[in-house]
Amino acid sequence: MSEKRVYLFREGNATMRDLLGGKGANLAEMTNIGLPVPPGFTITTDVCTEYYDNNRQVPSALMDEVRQAVADVEKNLGKKFGDASDPLLLSVRSGSKFSMPGMMDTILNLGLNAETLKGLVANGGDERFAYDAYRRFIMMFSDVVLDVSKHSFEELFGARKKAKGVKLDTDLDAADLKAASEEFLAFVESKTGEPFPSDPWKQLELAIEAVFRSWNNDRAIVYRRTEKIPDEIGTAVNVQSMVFGNMGDDCGTGVAFTRDPSTGENSLYGEYLMNAQGEDVVAGVRTPVPISELEKQNPAIYKEFVEIGNKLEGHYKDMQDLEFTIEKGRLFMLQCRNGKRTGPAAVRIAVEMVEEGLITKEQAVLRVNGAHLDQLLHPRIDDVYVTDRNILPVTKGLAASPGAAMGKAVFDSDTADRLANAGEKVMLVREETNPDDVHGMLASQGILTARGGKTSHAAVVARGFGIPCVAGAEEIEVDLKNRKFVVNGHEVNEGDIITIDGSTGELFLAQLPLIAPDVSGTFGTLMEWCDEYRRLKVRTNADNPRDSQQAIEFGAEGIGLCRTEHMFFEADRLPIMRDMILAKSDAQRQAALQKLEVVQQKDFEGIFEVMDGKPVTIRLIDPPLHEFLPSHEELLKEVTELEIAAHMTGGEAIKTVLEEKQTLLKAVEGMKEFNPMMGLRGCRLSIVFPGIVEMQTRSILGAAIKLAKRGVKVLPEIMIPLVGHVNELRAVQTQLENVAKEMLADSGTNVEYMFGTMIEIPRAALTAAEIAEYAEFFSFGTNDLTQMTFGFSRDDAEGKFLGDYVEKKILPTNPFESIDQTGVGRLMRLAVEEGRGQRKGLKCGICGEHGGDPSSIYFCHEIGLDYVSCSPFRVPIARLAAAQAAINEKQAVKA
Amino acid sequence: MSEKRVYLFREGNATMRDLLGGKGANLAEMTNIGLPVPPGFTITTDVCTEYYDNNRQVPSALMDEVRQAVADVEKNLGKKFGDASDPLLLSVRSGSKFSMPGMMDTILNLGLNAETLKGLVANGGDERFAYDAYRRFIMMFSDVVLDVSKHSFEELFGARKKAKGVKLDTDLDAADLKAASEEFLAFVESKTGEPFPSDPWKQLELAIEAVFRSWNNDRAIVYRRTEKIPDEIGTAVNVQSMVFGNMGDDCGTGVAFTRDPSTGENSLYGEYLMNAQGEDVVAGVRTPVPISELEKQNPAIYKEFVEIGNKLEGHYKDMQDLEFTIEKGRLFMLQCRNGKRTGPAAVRIAVEMVEEGLITKEQAVLRVNGAHLDQLLHPRIDDVYVTDRNILPVTKGLAASPGAAMGKAVFDSDTADRLANAGEKVMLVREETNPDDVHGMLASQGILTARGGKTSHAAVVARGFGIPCVAGAEEIEVDLKNRKFVVNGHEVNEGDIITIDGSTGELFLAQLPLIAPDVSGTFGTLMEWCDEYRRLKVRTNADNPRDSQQAIEFGAEGIGLCRTEHMFFEADRLPIMRDMILAKSDAQRQAALQKLEVVQQKDFEGIFEVMDGKPVTIRLIDPPLHEFLPSHEELLKEVTELEIAAHMTGGEAIKTVLEEKQTLLKAVEGMKEFNPMMGLRGCRLSIVFPGIVEMQTRSILGAAIKLAKRGVKVLPEIMIPLVGHVNELRAVQTQLENVAKEMLADSGTNVEYMFGTMIEIPRAALTAAEIAEYAEFFSFGTNDLTQMTFGFSRDDAEGKFLGDYVEKKILPTNPFESIDQTGVGRLMRLAVEEGRGQRKGLKCGICGEHGGDPSSIYFCHEIGLDYVSCSPFRVPIARLAAAQAAINEKQAVKA
Repeated sequence: MSEKRVYLFREGNATMRDLLGGKGANLAEMTNIGLPVPPGFTITTDVCTEYYDNNRQVPSALMDEVRQAVADVEKNLGKKFGDASDPLLLSVRSGSKFSMPGMMDTILNLGLNAETLKGLVANGGDERFAYDAYRRFIMMFSDVVLDVSKHSFEELFGARKKAKGVKLDTDLDAADLKAASEEFLAFVESKTGEPFPSDPWKQLELAIEAVFRSWNNDRAIVYRRTEKIPDEIGTAVNVQSMVFGNMGDDCGTGVAFTRDPSTGENSLYGEYLMNAQGEDVVAGVRTPVPISELEKQNPAIYKEFVEIGNKLEGHYKDMQDLEFTIEKGRLFMLQCRNGKRTGPAAVRIAVEMVEEGLITKEQAVLRVNGAHLDQLLHPRIDDVYVTDRNILPVTKGLAASPGAAMGKAVFDSDTADRLANAGEKVMLVREETNPDDVHGMLASQGILTARGGKTSHAAVVARGFGIPCVAGAEEIEVDLKNRKFVVNGHEVNEGDIITIDGSTGELFLAQLPLIAPDVSGTFGTLMEWCDEYRRLKVRTNADNPRDSQQAIEFGAEGIGLCRTEHMFFEADRLPIMRDMILAKSDAQRQAALQKLEVVQQKDFEGIFEVMDGKPVTIRLIDPPLHEFLPSHEELLKEVTELEIAAHMTGGEAIKTVLEEKQTLLKAVEGMKEFNPMMGLRGCRLSIVFPGIVEMQTRSILGAAIKLAKRGVKVLPEIMIPLVGHVNELRAVQTQLENVAKEMLADSGTNVEYMFGTMIEIPRAALTAAEIAEYAEFFSFGTNDLTQMTFGFSRDDAEGKFLGDYVEKKILPTNPFESIDQTGVGRLMRLAVEEGRGQRKGLKCGICGEHGGDPSSIYFCHEIGLDYVSCSPFRVPIARLAAAQAAINEKQAVKA
Repeated sequence: MSEKRVYLFREGNATMRDLLGGKGANLAEMTNIGLPVPPGFTITTDVCTEYYDNNRQVPSALMDEVRQAVADVEKNLGKKFGDASDPLLLSVRSGSKFSMPGMMDTILNLGLNAETLKGLVANGGDERFAYDAYRRFIMMFSDVVLDVSKHSFEELFGARKKAKGVKLDTDLDAADLKAASEEFLAFVESKTGEPFPSDPWKQLELAIEAVFRSWNNDRAIVYRRTEKIPDEIGTAVNVQSMVFGNMGDDCGTGVAFTRDPSTGENSLYGEYLMNAQGEDVVAGVRTPVPISELEKQNPAIYKEFVEIGNKLEGHYKDMQDLEFTIEKGRLFMLQCRNGKRTGPAAVRIAVEMVEEGLITKEQAVLRVNGAHLDQLLHPRIDDVYVTDRNILPVTKGLAASPGAAMGKAVFDSDTADRLANAGEKVMLVREETNPDDVHGMLASQGILTARGGKTSHAAVVARGFGIPCVAGAEEIEVDLKNRKFVVNGHEVNEGDIITIDGSTGELFLAQLPLIAPDVSGTFGTLMEWCDEYRRLKVRTNADNPRDSQQAIEFGAEGIGLCRTEHMFFEADRLPIMRDMILAKSDAQRQAALQKLEVVQQKDFEGIFEVMDGKPVTIRLIDPPLHEFLPSHEELLKEVTELEIAAHMTGGEAIKTVLEEKQTLLKAVEGMKEFNPMMGLRGCRLSIVFPGIVEMQTRSILGAAIKLAKRGVKVLPEIMIPLVGHVNELRAVQTQLENVAKEMLADSGTNVEYMFGTMIEIPRAALTAAEIAEYAEFFSFGTNDLTQMTFGFSRDDAEGKFLGDYVEKKILPTNPFESIDQTGVGRLMRLAVEEGRGQRKGLKCGICGEHGGDPSSIYFCHEIGLDYVSCSPFRVPIARLAAAQAAINEKQAVKA
């Protein structure tokens, strides 16, 4: 490492974030565009790496470079570090590439000791100010560098105030603060066994090392894990000359955004305090004043600040988050960075900045992310309200279906339905839901369950219908009999109002104000721009006309996955389905199939009508048949009980029921599987029992022919699931194509239809060329493909070890949320290439849940899929991600 | 198709099996080496294909070529086809590339009609012979060509014998046979509405077509499916001049093998009948005479025949199966082919032929197959005894562990153990077995279960211990209470003797003679030769010293898979294991782990001692922990019953038991998984609960250090299962390497150990390069790799659809028996290549059950694995297959 370790602010610029960290790069940039930045320098992130590589030793040559840089600052300001007459004081701050607010340590007023203190007083600070700075410095330095906890100092300071009978720090005078400083120094020495370091250079060296050390404190590690910031990039250290906002009434400090971070409105937004330090603003002892007040209080400074804001926005071409200090009537900029913002603000700022000519449409599209849109598309809890009142969630479950909802807790679906019809807003609270609950779920504002994961019935149905849902909130205990639930000691009775946030999994025992989604105006404009850039088409996963309509309004260009079995789970169909499965004769089975054909044809008619002119991919039956039967465990319990009852009473009635249940139990046992995920389902079912898919094909073509005759353009794409070997596809497809051809010939109508397959079994991907001989399209079922490529049963893994895996960094992310590009992605890429090698232009899409995940969508773009398909409410996010993928690709080509 | 459709025998040769079929090629070869073959010709298999491609029409030009060929035969013999004075009669026989004995149709004596009959009489046949030939021809032709069933003719003929009051055909005289012929002709006309075709050329054309047609009769199709003969290769038709073994006492017919097909002894073996046609030998009306008698009866013919036999063996360099006919003192060869033989014969013949200088050692190795060796290594039922007495199995289950066994049926393990100790041979019959049964299984000759597949507990344990086992014999109903089982109407009580054949899955309700395995002499020689050629090493799967010793005797060069969890299932360890799993505190868990460590270390000491100097791959714990706990269902039933009992009696004792069981049920429920195959097991378990594998590593190294100090050479290879992501391996391996290093350092001993991983998850194969950064060896777990690549749960698939799949030709074979080279094999090949790309010379082996399957072993050789590992009794088969793979490769390179 012979490279430069220290950069003066004037030597850096905004592009050097990797080396100087975000804060350092921006301080350099501001310095170079001529803004009033207190002079200073940055020690690079490489030195941090060097520190850790070198067994936590600061490289010996560093301090020489630091001394040179300090000399430059001294020259610039005409002050001397450690000078007793006019001392230069420094702040030492961390600053990594990515913002980690409050996670690492900061030391202010560095350079103070008994000598320099005098110089501070001599140069315009009064004694009170000086001792206040000194006692703060001792506390901060001891806490950060010497491992003497801040709390001890606060206790000492509190005792002092108590002794004097005052409450506020400001009630202490210079003498008090001087005494406090001395007490602090003595305390430090008693704790560490050594005097507090008074040599400013020693202070500086220790402070720099402490900042490096703080990169690996516990809270920083946790924060990086959460925010997916790499551990190895390290932090820079910014050493800057101090300016003071608390040297009198011509001083002040504040923070501001160049636009409203909550709404995106283009007007300066922020607050400040006169005669205060930054930490006073944060501590909330005095209430800051809106930034607009500054215009009245000091129009010149205000004007200067507005101009700086405009200059920075123009320079960075993004909304800026600014920190400033006014020292004796002079404005200093201490920090600027791109401001964080809400979803609505992100969209509005991006679109308006294009209209203002500040950025291009492409830049605007890249500046909004999926989480921003998600906020726009669902109601959300009013953050300000919750933060102001410090309202905490009572528990947290899984964020199963996004959006916030509020309503009266009810404990069964009939009640939910009844109350909703009477105009009440209700929240359905269940141990877990089952197919019998669908009407109650539809009637509710939101759904809360105690058990089940993100693929549980409640979660899947809720997402399908766009209803907010918190699932698997294991801390709640539902007591259906007494119509209440208990959570962490709180009791919630039927009718009590609760609020859930399905985007975070939080449950609040209160009525919270919700902010309605807003999809008008700038959102529409942004979506139009997305559509100009993207190459990927966006389809939706929908099983009914309502969802299909919703998805079209969000811009869906077709259905990528219509799960036909959902139709069989509905209350009026389940008994017919069961009759079919349990049929004792072929005639019984045929009769049930015919009934199902009639209802399923009606379902398809509804969907085709809505999707007029847009393709509809229909997946033939996929789950194992036992999913349609009662649970084995419940039956086993029931039969055991009935056996004992029958044995004891000998009653005929009981015997009859027992026999019935025994027969059913036997049927269920016969169909039981060790690993149902990998058992008799999908096309395997169709090969062993061809009747169901023949029925489904007839109902699809029946609906298509009927609507085609009415002039509706129907484009069915019939999808055969769980193919692992080309012969499976060939067998099923041949049989069904015969059915289709015959029906079309009989009808005298023409319907453009296709047959294709899911690629969801590793072997299908590995033999894609063979499969593409028959399949007219591929649709990646990345849920199952991920399960089998990893050997993870999602239902088991998410509850039992996937959390551990992500936490322990065994896996970078949950592969069911973002496609594992290395493993699963390799299979996908191979299947696309080899499939298209066999069948030129083979249509390839994705219908797994990854189809709504931005990073997965980028990958789908990269490997050349034709479309992604996702739930209706993810459609806008998919349009955005698809556009971003295309723009990034274009830019990469240019670069 | 302008090619030659008809080949005279002298125009063909033995290499033309594809075109002329096996029989035709051999007839041509015999003709060309100067043997007395009745002249004739062969219509090629291509014509059969042409026939089917052409909508079952015989190509029009065929009969012209046939006429030319017949003319050649006529010229050769000086007879004319259809000539009334000295007619040429023909046989028309099928003959495909692969032998399909009795599956297709044959017509003899073709060319007979009212006119030619006279010529037959005139030329040495008497009248009775001629009419006998005629009536046989009419029957055969009508049956085969005209679809008039043979049975009708047999009924007519039977009635005639009855009317005359005789029993044997030979009691009918010429007049009777003439009358019968006329009756047959009239019957045919009444059935078909047309006269029986008298034109010899018409007869010939119809017969040829009938042979083509018979390629697709039901029994031929079924046979091909069983024997895996492709459907599309078609049959040739052999047309040959008739010779008669039934024209008088100087005539005869017989079949013989050049060596004993049962033992392999080098002496002519066969039987014959004088004055008889081939079908008389088969029909069993007269008892044939051993071929040695011919030497006395006709020394000249015998000598000629022996010389022909020697000539053919010398020519084909293999044991021959011969058919011959003696017509009026002249010997004719009608067929020769390589003779089928038993396993012992195959080995002896191969080895002795090398000693005789007839074939090379390489050829000898290629001539024996795995099934042959399997017969040698296990007791088998005496085929001759069973065939002679026409003894049929009463049912068939799964061939779960090879070999035959015989003993008294017993229904529980304690009884089995007790009786065996008293010197009885017992057969354990169970609904299904569980870990508690192991002692009874070990005490039994064989095991029969009503439920469970080839991976059931019974099957896995039986194979492990080399005990014959028939599993999943679903037709047997075990009635434990009454100590009997019922199967297809038969009742078998405890103590009744039964015989099972674990190589076929058959159950016999009888005491059958068993032939003991014979692994001496030529077997040893052959195995030595195998070892000279093979490149692949052969290891064994063994978990205890007994199996390890057995495997070494069979030639194992190491252990490729020692499953450590089997050790925990044993009766004395299971309770400790349960204590460990259900531990309420860390102290309890540690105590149980320490107990396990002690017993497991002893296990390893035993194995290492036996394996002195040979590598031992030890797989760390793999199954989910709930496998060690009682079944959820049984507990649920028990708790339900106890709840009712407690409710009714209110007794304290019951309540205590209930609470205990409830606690256990809750624990079992908590660990229950939807798809345990893809749940919390393998290295996932080790990441979530690191204690178990740490204990295992300590016990492995503890044993190794102890033995190393005693001078035993220990080479442990510690294998981490179920890795899907390199980080899983890294995490577990790092932790365990620390344990190992520390123990070795403490002990001051050096042990060469390695850490490696199973490749059994598709993602592991796809990311092999990353994984090889850490893994020092790969072992392909092709059972799980097949499950996940196909998405097949083996436990479910084999019972529910895999049978259907193979029968319907969706899959060519069961992929759990032979590696699916296209899909699973692609992943293996990729993993070997990319793994070795990362780590040069990476040791790669296979430890799935495929390691004992010859075609899978060929594949393992092809992709460059270092070794295969299989159960002890498969080791010789693996050595053979490995040698064959190497020889075939060498020959392919030369060619």
